[in-house]
Amino acid sequence: MIIEIALITIDPTQAHAFEHAVAQARDIFQTAEGCRGMRLERMIEDPAKYMLRIQWDSLEHHMVTFRNSEGFQAWRALASPFFVAAPVVEHSREVLHGF
Amino acid sequence: MIIEIALITIDPTQAHAFEHAVAQARDIFQTAEGCRGMRLERMIEDPAKYMLRIQWDSLEHHMVTFRNSEGFQAWRALASPFFVAAPVVEHSREVLHGF
Repeated sequence: MIIEIALITIDPTQAHAFEHAVAQARDIFQTAEGCRGMRLERMIEDPAKYMLRIQWDSLEHHMVTFRNSEGFQAWRALASPFFVAAPVVEHSREVLHGF
Repeated sequence: MIIEIALITIDPTQAHAFEHAVAQARDIFQTAEGCRGMRLERMIEDPAKYMLRIQWDSLEHHMVTFRNSEGFQAWRALASPFFVAAPVVEHSREVLHGF
């Protein structure tokens, strides 16, 4: 299991509509092959920034299978109108689940 | 509930020892007032970087109560020898728990 971490910057006056768009995309991720969960967090120090965290079975499920799927196109159609910069996407792996 | 997100950079040849130090710090956080969980993730694209995620009841529990506690001193004594740069600390609030 890996975690996609996308740092997304929007116009903060559009926050409500952006959060609604991400909520609408829930089914896209829930039905995507190898996708195990999604969370959206808003950064407190900079409310123009969100951290979208999506769990995938593998890096390939995100970067190859999903990116080449219709689901990715549908996701981008919902979310990208809110982007004021290209999202910064990285991946992590949990190494300690403390408590 | 808020999430402290600390981006920590270490010398990647020290990864095993750093992860062990964070595991040793588990009790510090588990007994800290208002602390609800901790996770350590290693970044895949840059294995010198870790994302430490700590859940707190409030921003004040992290930034005031914990930062002024002996627990913070004990945590820094364990972890800071591994830091090759000052950690970048931000906070977030979950706005969507998708699935």
